[in-house]
Amino acid sequence: MMMQRLRRSEEFIRFGCESLINLRPNKNSVPRSVSGFVTHYDTKGKLFESNVGNHYNTHRCLGRNLGMLQQYKCFGSSSASQIERKPLFSSLDSKDVSSFKEILGDKNVVEDEERLETANTDWMKKYKGSSKLMLLPKNTEEVSQILQYCDSRRLAVVPQGGNTGLVGGSVPVFDEVIINVGLMNKVLAFDEVSGVLVCEAGCILENLATFLDTKGFIMPLDLGAKGSCHIGGNVSTNAGGLRLIRYGSLHGTVLEAVTANGNVLDMLGTLRKDNTGYDLKHLFIGSEGSLGIVTKVSILTQPKLSSVNLAFIACKDYLSCQKILVEAKKNLGEILSAFEFLDNNSMDLVLNHLDGVRNPVSSTENFYILIETTGSDETNDREKLEAFLLKSLEKGLVSDGVIAQDINQASSFWRIREGITEALQKAGAVYKYDLSLPVEEIYNIVNDLRRRLGELANVMGYGHLGDGNLHLNISAADYNDKLIGLIEPYVYEWTSKHRGSISAEHGLGVMKANEIFYSKSPETVAIMASIKKLLDPKGILNPYKVLPHSLFSH
Amino acid sequence: MMMQRLRRSEEFIRFGCESLINLRPNKNSVPRSVSGFVTHYDTKGKLFESNVGNHYNTHRCLGRNLGMLQQYKCFGSSSASQIERKPLFSSLDSKDVSSFKEILGDKNVVEDEERLETANTDWMKKYKGSSKLMLLPKNTEEVSQILQYCDSRRLAVVPQGGNTGLVGGSVPVFDEVIINVGLMNKVLAFDEVSGVLVCEAGCILENLATFLDTKGFIMPLDLGAKGSCHIGGNVSTNAGGLRLIRYGSLHGTVLEAVTANGNVLDMLGTLRKDNTGYDLKHLFIGSEGSLGIVTKVSILTQPKLSSVNLAFIACKDYLSCQKILVEAKKNLGEILSAFEFLDNNSMDLVLNHLDGVRNPVSSTENFYILIETTGSDETNDREKLEAFLLKSLEKGLVSDGVIAQDINQASSFWRIREGITEALQKAGAVYKYDLSLPVEEIYNIVNDLRRRLGELANVMGYGHLGDGNLHLNISAADYNDKLIGLIEPYVYEWTSKHRGSISAEHGLGVMKANEIFYSKSPETVAIMASIKKLLDPKGILNPYKVLPHSLFSH
Repeated sequence: MMMQRLRRSEEFIRFGCESLINLRPNKNSVPRSVSGFVTHYDTKGKLFESNVGNHYNTHRCLGRNLGMLQQYKCFGSSSASQIERKPLFSSLDSKDVSSFKEILGDKNVVEDEERLETANTDWMKKYKGSSKLMLLPKNTEEVSQILQYCDSRRLAVVPQGGNTGLVGGSVPVFDEVIINVGLMNKVLAFDEVSGVLVCEAGCILENLATFLDTKGFIMPLDLGAKGSCHIGGNVSTNAGGLRLIRYGSLHGTVLEAVTANGNVLDMLGTLRKDNTGYDLKHLFIGSEGSLGIVTKVSILTQPKLSSVNLAFIACKDYLSCQKILVEAKKNLGEILSAFEFLDNNSMDLVLNHLDGVRNPVSSTENFYILIETTGSDETNDREKLEAFLLKSLEKGLVSDGVIAQDINQASSFWRIREGITEALQKAGAVYKYDLSLPVEEIYNIVNDLRRRLGELANVMGYGHLGDGNLHLNISAADYNDKLIGLIEPYVYEWTSKHRGSISAEHGLGVMKANEIFYSKSPETVAIMASIKKLLDPKGILNPYKVLPHSLFSH
Repeated sequence: MMMQRLRRSEEFIRFGCESLINLRPNKNSVPRSVSGFVTHYDTKGKLFESNVGNHYNTHRCLGRNLGMLQQYKCFGSSSASQIERKPLFSSLDSKDVSSFKEILGDKNVVEDEERLETANTDWMKKYKGSSKLMLLPKNTEEVSQILQYCDSRRLAVVPQGGNTGLVGGSVPVFDEVIINVGLMNKVLAFDEVSGVLVCEAGCILENLATFLDTKGFIMPLDLGAKGSCHIGGNVSTNAGGLRLIRYGSLHGTVLEAVTANGNVLDMLGTLRKDNTGYDLKHLFIGSEGSLGIVTKVSILTQPKLSSVNLAFIACKDYLSCQKILVEAKKNLGEILSAFEFLDNNSMDLVLNHLDGVRNPVSSTENFYILIETTGSDETNDREKLEAFLLKSLEKGLVSDGVIAQDINQASSFWRIREGITEALQKAGAVYKYDLSLPVEEIYNIVNDLRRRLGELANVMGYGHLGDGNLHLNISAADYNDKLIGLIEPYVYEWTSKHRGSISAEHGLGVMKANEIFYSKSPETVAIMASIKKLLDPKGILNPYKVLPHSLFSH
């Protein structure tokens, strides 16, 4: 019956559109990667949050008082901890401001309260620092001079790009000087033969995508925050996103970075192969500005392919989802560009809370999968996807499915997957986790947690199945200690036990700095700390973040 | 005319074969990656060589004398330099041997002269150490214990895998203790859903490929030395090879490594995404065993695809080669699996010196290109390749071309590309360089050098065009100072000026350790040295290699 349905030609309506990915709903306000966090206010109107960490944090935003305290309220098994401003850091004085004005000119040394208010606050309005100064360097040389000065004065700094991070990594914790690279926004070179783009760190991702579009290329990453985020920030945080399954992580990128003492490390080669010594660029990719400030980026872009197809399918069980992934990698391998999944609880939530959304397949199933292909030949790619779906249907892996007929239909399919975050926010309190797990374990944690919580909450699982990245969400009427106590540290321990990662794509920032041991061994963290000390002996670069505070208490 | 030729259906003879790559001629004796080196003996019968470095080295192999000297004869602009055994390293005594026997058992502590002779000598018989001891640990714990002991005693060690390296990195320079991981050869896990293979470092690449073949997967790298080389060595040297254009470098791999003091760093996660702290594994990938010994590897393998096609085409000029590369990436993008080129001088050499080789296209042209596709649908892929070649012909980029009709014909095409090294050796003295350069510059250095050398030598260019990797070869009647003086340091300076790399895929080893500054800035090398000091304070791990000897003179 379902087989017949898929076989009827009118159901195999397709589309081929060059700019499909670009036409997905712009999610700047609720980015794809927002999961793992929720902003909420407690009964006294104070900022209050749930995060992926075994502490339940209450950040008290005390304005500009130096020595301000971030109080951690502990619900998990760990003891309460606090972050205090490091007393060894100097406080900014008027002589410092004059020195910065000499380096940058008056205009690019920002003391204006309103602009500082914005720069001190992250986009979720969850983290707020009290910096009194933002510097806007125009080039690498100026970044080098600033850092040299700050290092000599032991002034702490926070590197900032588009400030779209989700772990409090891009705003000051206390009074760190903000170094925003937004003025460094030039494309420096593009080579149509190799596809290598060289640009400054402050280029906005979407602007680069627009520039490349005219050349027939695409960026190898696509993020919800692309309208604001900077490529330097993307590289510094090793941003993930929807194209990772196809083009891999940003560790393929090369770059120029400036270390704490102002040394410029030129690792900006445009070569695909270079085996001359240690590949240091990887230290700066994903270290969240704690080892150096990325000033230029050289990145391998991809030819824009002309044919995009999107299928929405339903499956009875998670084992079938896994099998479809294996088959898709084998049969669609070279054209597979996205493999996303959601469970029925997620689908219900979207249908109940978002207007104008309908289930593309008429039947209700336990799981739904979006499979996108991107290739160079519309007819071939379409036939490949159709043949693949038919085969999956014959094998009983798929119970129903449709292929989008045009951009609007494709957009409506993506709306379901991308609308989950919005629907969750409308549904009440939500405890969000962003985990990397072996694919075969991904849904076990959802089931285990569902059993553990019973009637107390609605547990949902969705995410980038092709990358082993689960967005685990627990929706409840309100936030309460009992529920948190049941979830944490259970989720982290479960993740750790299955060799998962407590941060698949968001980084650690200030939020999860203390939770690193759930994913990394003490030996590994010790070496990280030594490398931090090596490249930033005075600890001025993005302090209180990435590494456990205990390692740097004094 | 040529257009008609390509259009005639009998010319479009194809093949589709699962195991094409595996059936390429086994080049263990003359591996694909041998270029860049030549073994030659001087008039006194001493080992004599040309290498990619501004020194023309004469290695005197003085057997087992401690304190033996490696004399560098200088032909370039740099002053002569020498390597001396570091006096701070201890010399092995009987107590050490007893201690190792306690850790490993008698059998796996090798003092046998014949076995040591083999282990002390690299496969080219170009580098020879004088170690008196080889250790064969069976697991990570034993590696850890060995290193802990050696570190405490300040006994220098050389990690060794299949000993197929080309830069003297895998054999002792003096009396370093050899730690060979050949007994650590177990596959530990394979996940058919994610495609992640976990194995011990001593697994032979070909054995892993055979194991995966039964599961329907392939290794993401393919090397000439696959019958002997170990996966641990591949990772430690960031080996390149033929599949790099498709699957990228080994920096996508994760691993477990043991540092000098015996600390086991477990970075063996099987996750595609993990943003929790600095990604330290990259330090061990390509650092040639100088920071730690890789003991286990977790690697993302690829589904084996059923359709392989190979085209051999001729082009008038290098600009056309570049344009074809751009078009191939765009039009064949997702199925492109190799893009190799050779110039007419290389073709002539092969035709003149190898038996049974003929030019697959009847006309003589300036350049030839091999394009291989690997995909999941034979009919589609074949049509795609045909359409692409027709389009290239219509645009005037291609002047002639054929598609292999079967495995034998494909093998005969590959024989041309892979036979160049052998033909060069038969032709006389050869000066070999392995450079990474921006694609648009690749043939400029060939032309410039041709002009510079005039009638003195025959300059040839071939290599992995798709990766920007040139094998620059100069064939002459004999080795002489005048020629070397014209080539070096000219080639390195040219490469450096164009932001190229003097080692695209072979690493630095002992051979090019002093040449690192041609490709890396002093600031970058200084940080490398600091990291070396951090992870291996006593410098016992693979000394005299990778980093300039001057940095570790005492």
